[in-house]
Amino acid sequence: MATFADIGVAAGINILFAVAFLVAFAILRLQPINDRVYFPKWYLKGLRSSPMHSGSFVSKFVNLDWRSYVRFLNWVPDALRMPEPELIDHAGLDSAVYLRIYLLGLKIFIPIALLSWAILVPVNWTNNTLAKSEATDKLQFSDIDKLSISNVPYGSLRFWTHIVMAYAFTFWTCYTLIKEYATTAAMRLHFLASERSRPDQFTVLVRNVPPDPDESVSESVEHFFLVNHPDHYLTQQVVINANKLAKLVKEKKSKQNWLDYYQLKYSRNQSKRPVTKTGFLGLWGEKVDAIDYQAAEIERLSKEIAEERERLKSDPKYIMPAAFVSFRSRWGAAVCAQTQQTRNPTLWLTEWAPEPRDVYWDNLAIPYVSLTIRRLVAAVAFFFLTFFFMIPVTIVQSLANIEGIERRAPFLKPIIEISFIKSVIQGFLPGIALKIFLIVLPTILMMMSKFEGFLSISALERRSALRYYIFNFVNVFLVSVIAGTAFQQLDSFLHQSANEIPKTIGVAIPMKATFFITYVMVDGWAGVAGEILRLKPLIIFHLKNFFLVKTEKDREEAMDPGSIGFNTGEPQIQLYFLLGLVYAVVTPVFLPFILVFFALAYVVFRHQIINVYNQEYESAAAFWPDVHGRIISALVFSQLVLMGLMSTKGAAQSTPFLIALPVLTIWFHRFCKGRYEPAFIRYPLQEAMMKDTLERAREPNLNLKSYLRYAYIHPVFKNDEDGEHDDDISEKLDETVLVPTKRQSRKNTPAPSMLSGASSPSLPDVAENPQGLKP
Amino acid sequence: MATFADIGVAAGINILFAVAFLVAFAILRLQPINDRVYFPKWYLKGLRSSPMHSGSFVSKFVNLDWRSYVRFLNWVPDALRMPEPELIDHAGLDSAVYLRIYLLGLKIFIPIALLSWAILVPVNWTNNTLAKSEATDKLQFSDIDKLSISNVPYGSLRFWTHIVMAYAFTFWTCYTLIKEYATTAAMRLHFLASERSRPDQFTVLVRNVPPDPDESVSESVEHFFLVNHPDHYLTQQVVINANKLAKLVKEKKSKQNWLDYYQLKYSRNQSKRPVTKTGFLGLWGEKVDAIDYQAAEIERLSKEIAEERERLKSDPKYIMPAAFVSFRSRWGAAVCAQTQQTRNPTLWLTEWAPEPRDVYWDNLAIPYVSLTIRRLVAAVAFFFLTFFFMIPVTIVQSLANIEGIERRAPFLKPIIEISFIKSVIQGFLPGIALKIFLIVLPTILMMMSKFEGFLSISALERRSALRYYIFNFVNVFLVSVIAGTAFQQLDSFLHQSANEIPKTIGVAIPMKATFFITYVMVDGWAGVAGEILRLKPLIIFHLKNFFLVKTEKDREEAMDPGSIGFNTGEPQIQLYFLLGLVYAVVTPVFLPFILVFFALAYVVFRHQIINVYNQEYESAAAFWPDVHGRIISALVFSQLVLMGLMSTKGAAQSTPFLIALPVLTIWFHRFCKGRYEPAFIRYPLQEAMMKDTLERAREPNLNLKSYLRYAYIHPVFKNDEDGEHDDDISEKLDETVLVPTKRQSRKNTPAPSMLSGASSPSLPDVAENPQGLKP
Repeated sequence: MATFADIGVAAGINILFAVAFLVAFAILRLQPINDRVYFPKWYLKGLRSSPMHSGSFVSKFVNLDWRSYVRFLNWVPDALRMPEPELIDHAGLDSAVYLRIYLLGLKIFIPIALLSWAILVPVNWTNNTLAKSEATDKLQFSDIDKLSISNVPYGSLRFWTHIVMAYAFTFWTCYTLIKEYATTAAMRLHFLASERSRPDQFTVLVRNVPPDPDESVSESVEHFFLVNHPDHYLTQQVVINANKLAKLVKEKKSKQNWLDYYQLKYSRNQSKRPVTKTGFLGLWGEKVDAIDYQAAEIERLSKEIAEERERLKSDPKYIMPAAFVSFRSRWGAAVCAQTQQTRNPTLWLTEWAPEPRDVYWDNLAIPYVSLTIRRLVAAVAFFFLTFFFMIPVTIVQSLANIEGIERRAPFLKPIIEISFIKSVIQGFLPGIALKIFLIVLPTILMMMSKFEGFLSISALERRSALRYYIFNFVNVFLVSVIAGTAFQQLDSFLHQSANEIPKTIGVAIPMKATFFITYVMVDGWAGVAGEILRLKPLIIFHLKNFFLVKTEKDREEAMDPGSIGFNTGEPQIQLYFLLGLVYAVVTPVFLPFILVFFALAYVVFRHQIINVYNQEYESAAAFWPDVHGRIISALVFSQLVLMGLMSTKGAAQSTPFLIALPVLTIWFHRFCKGRYEPAFIRYPLQEAMMKDTLERAREPNLNLKSYLRYAYIHPVFKNDEDGEHDDDISEKLDETVLVPTKRQSRKNTPAPSMLSGASSPSLPDVAENPQGLKP
Repeated sequence: MATFADIGVAAGINILFAVAFLVAFAILRLQPINDRVYFPKWYLKGLRSSPMHSGSFVSKFVNLDWRSYVRFLNWVPDALRMPEPELIDHAGLDSAVYLRIYLLGLKIFIPIALLSWAILVPVNWTNNTLAKSEATDKLQFSDIDKLSISNVPYGSLRFWTHIVMAYAFTFWTCYTLIKEYATTAAMRLHFLASERSRPDQFTVLVRNVPPDPDESVSESVEHFFLVNHPDHYLTQQVVINANKLAKLVKEKKSKQNWLDYYQLKYSRNQSKRPVTKTGFLGLWGEKVDAIDYQAAEIERLSKEIAEERERLKSDPKYIMPAAFVSFRSRWGAAVCAQTQQTRNPTLWLTEWAPEPRDVYWDNLAIPYVSLTIRRLVAAVAFFFLTFFFMIPVTIVQSLANIEGIERRAPFLKPIIEISFIKSVIQGFLPGIALKIFLIVLPTILMMMSKFEGFLSISALERRSALRYYIFNFVNVFLVSVIAGTAFQQLDSFLHQSANEIPKTIGVAIPMKATFFITYVMVDGWAGVAGEILRLKPLIIFHLKNFFLVKTEKDREEAMDPGSIGFNTGEPQIQLYFLLGLVYAVVTPVFLPFILVFFALAYVVFRHQIINVYNQEYESAAAFWPDVHGRIISALVFSQLVLMGLMSTKGAAQSTPFLIALPVLTIWFHRFCKGRYEPAFIRYPLQEAMMKDTLERAREPNLNLKSYLRYAYIHPVFKNDEDGEHDDDISEKLDETVLVPTKRQSRKNTPAPSMLSGASSPSLPDVAENPQGLKP
């Protein structure tokens, strides 16, 4: 058991790390050479130009102005200064609402911390249970335990304080949650209403268009909607399966980068032409002249791309049974998205079209039956991933021991046998397999979501976030609380009775407080401080800058602003909500550590969102119901655990009082769901009608058809490397249009999604190419 | 343990009962005097006139034609002869689909019974486990157990037969279920499409209209829909709170009945004027002249009714914040019913209007917050009702003993002390409290559903059916399988581990086979045969006929056709599905008994639906998703129980094979839900548009507005005892109409619901007044 001193030392080390990161950041960000790493958002917005153009040679790279170093913590007030409406305008609603999750943490836990320190800490402290058992049983207890519920004697009446506090905390959490839900819903509706017209407001995604022997998909869609929505139908765009083309274009792009790299290398050192190997990653195969090889490859790919384009134009097989159908008014689109079209509810499926950037093109053509099977497979796979992932990790660990390496690679033997290296390898190897697994886990989860067939990147991220949270709950929280792997726990829970399980967890909770305090400091404090330093993008930017960049455009492409990463970030926050709620009653000492995390993370991420991240899509805070639901489930879990703990503390008579809590909390959740969730799923007709009327009055001559014409085109047709609109494809899409007004359409279409069209989940590669944002 | 002989005796007794009921029915139905008891449906349809008008005096009451007695079983082929489309036309889709539940039972269990007798019975029979243990342990086993899974030795490889059979049965059940779901969905859509226009196709029920200081509810509704559905809105009818008026009218009706009775009595025996007491049920209070008293009461009520009518006309407080909004087209109504209207999803709630007869008027004005609280209260109340109902019953039982009665009513002592009577009372009293509780249980559940705030009678019955099924499952099935009250079981389940519970139930299942066979014979065979005899309506009809009937119209009112009673009937069938599925693998001997039940019940209820029952509403088979879901849950339960049983039989290695079954079954359920459930909830726009277009072509001059004008009027305004339309109220509703064409509207409006407007759940009283059906 850790004492205050131990915790103090751990806190000191972690604070040191955090401060070191922050200081490093404060210095690095002032250097002009790093400007594009720490302020890419402003470059992308066109509001900041490179500071490297002016001043002396040295001051192009290093900041020599000592005054700016004095104000090195200025970024904190800067980050906090921007008001929320401006932030929404600057970075989008998703980012602004994402920050509100941290704020919500502060709102929930500041009053809870004050109350529990004012009431629970004195109540716990003024007992001597632990002191007694220390005297009699020679058990060691720390000061932290003396402040926790463990110090209250068995069967004491003082437990009523804890029960009353559990009610108070639940009430306060629910109150804050409902206020926040209302605010977010209002913000979302206001955001949707106050925006200029967006194509997704008029457009519905139609899937599972049944095949028709006499008509093409395009004709079939057109006829169906002309018949069934006669007064509202405007136009439609069929979905062309350009996944292969997108892959080829991406490949060509990468080869081009390599060519640039070799050319630059050659130009710097003319003595030797660079060589490469033709095999995987240039590691194996025949040695060839690199420049010639890459140039030949590019030529080959250009030809293939041209052929693929030809095929797309001529072959009807490339047209998927899906279409984006646009309506004359938001009212018409809202109606179509919310209703069932035909007797068979698995055909002509309509739903709101995601924002064009947000569309995940690969999944648009999955039929209904296949979708349900994919869901089942993904669910079963996730179950095994969560409970049995230790099996492959253990196998890898057992293979990757010293002897195994020596057997497979005998030439390494002399090096490995050096005792220092041997001990390092023996110490690190087992952990590495696990660490690698944990690093690729979000990618695996994202692939599962893609396999499941979601249609927008935001939906993919939401589903991945849910799975990541469950994985963390089982494999980080439960495994830390109760020893043993997840599978052993599943097995023991199956063999325990329903009222035993909360007791098992409840008893273990107070004992693990110090462990989780350390966890919060390492993962929360130092981790968040590390986030602001952006070490990886910093290194990659400078490498690219050195090896690839020739023009200003290249430099722009070398920036990697990244994005919030909802699928990994949100589950992390949720783990802190869980810890905070579970320990609020049990070990109030825990709460200040959580508060520091929320405050620090709020400032850091606000800074990052303002200066760095560039969101790939805008879902208008569609994730809030998930956030709300997970906090509620953490609350219910904390209540059940408290119930289990109480019943082992001789306060079993309190069970009826405590059992009402989860019932009321779940009821509260259902109420919130009914009251606020529709704002995140549906689009009320009144709003649509108001906006339609307003717009008709304001812009009576808006040519909606031309505006919507090319809104939903696979990004590969827009984002061509030659910068030209692909006229052939447009012609194909145009079949029925008399006056194609392409220029007009081009100006208004939002930037294409960076992810869509990419078949592999390797974000950084794709994100290298954000020039679409400033056409 | 019962032997074949025991079962044979029980079967003999029950068959005797069943045959006696059927013979009694066959004879009674031929008597002209009973004609209105056994063929009321035909009278209500106006297709049968009283046979008592013609022939000799005796033949008016007794059938003297011996040939008809020879053909006394003719009703069976008669009942089966009517083809399904004609049945739908005759009795409605609800009734026709209800019969298909029995057919579904036959479809599922005939092949299962054949297969299990062909394979499982030989596999079980050719072991000698029970014979051995009989020899060693002196345990007695019956022949039935020798045919069951109990006879297979511990750890035998023969259990693989049972596992394969479990897969085969699951597959067959699912196949039958999905076929049936598809058929029912198609029948429903065909029914909705082929019908003549019904008001509910054009009408949407709007609730929670927000109060407006400047406008009345009617104006507010009109303006809202004129703005937000400008091309489709046609007209609206506000809901008037006429519950008090309905109660007064009902009271007057009852007094009128008493007055008729006393007048008839007086006219038969002029020597003495009848007297009555003024207190409760005429049991207490002052003695008065009955005829004068009732006449005065009627006068008082007439005055009160007139006053109430006056108030309804003038007081805006009687207008509820709800309205029936009608649209120009089915398309418009379908759109409005399926979409959200405003930002706040708890205001302007729209949903399909139930059929006018189906509306439950009392609940139309419950606000959203109150609704969610009511749901919570009802759920908690139902939990306590299910698990703790034995507590009040036991209290009543302990009070209602001989000594208690003697103490409270000493004057009864001499009678009670007679030893024969004493033993009878002692034997019956404890059972009576329980029996009375079980008889009133459906009424209690119906009251709970009403409290919960459902808006249509069909929804009330569906919810009551769900609750009744759960109650039966816990208190009939589980309590019979495992000894102890429901609460003791809940307690023991809470203290058992998740993998212990299926074992506990699984082990007990084979031992209870004979008990459930007897249960099926008593409740299923004899009970269903008793249903066709209609003893209670027979007696009540003759009593009324003797005491009240003066005119032909009175005689019509004395008929009580009753209805299917979905809320009690369907849970009973579901219990048989559960038993059949649970015992299919374990004790195949059970299946023939189930089959007899399904076949007998199918014939009997088909006869009743054709000749007797008069459905109060038509929900177009909206209950099918519930039926489907409960069979699926029974299937999953049977799989879990089999898994538990197997693991105690030394076949634990089979668990992985069996665990896949519930997973696949639940996935199958989700697939069916996605594929077919929307047909029962939504109205596809394509269908609406087709029907609209057809109708416009066929009846271009249909005056829809006048047709819909009075479709949704509280029945008390239509069903006046003076047979006149209430002009004042119509005027009030008419505010905006220029040409009220009342006659027209009257002819088309379906008969009013018999239940709606009645605040107490006493069906027979209200159903006495079906003259609305033939205006």
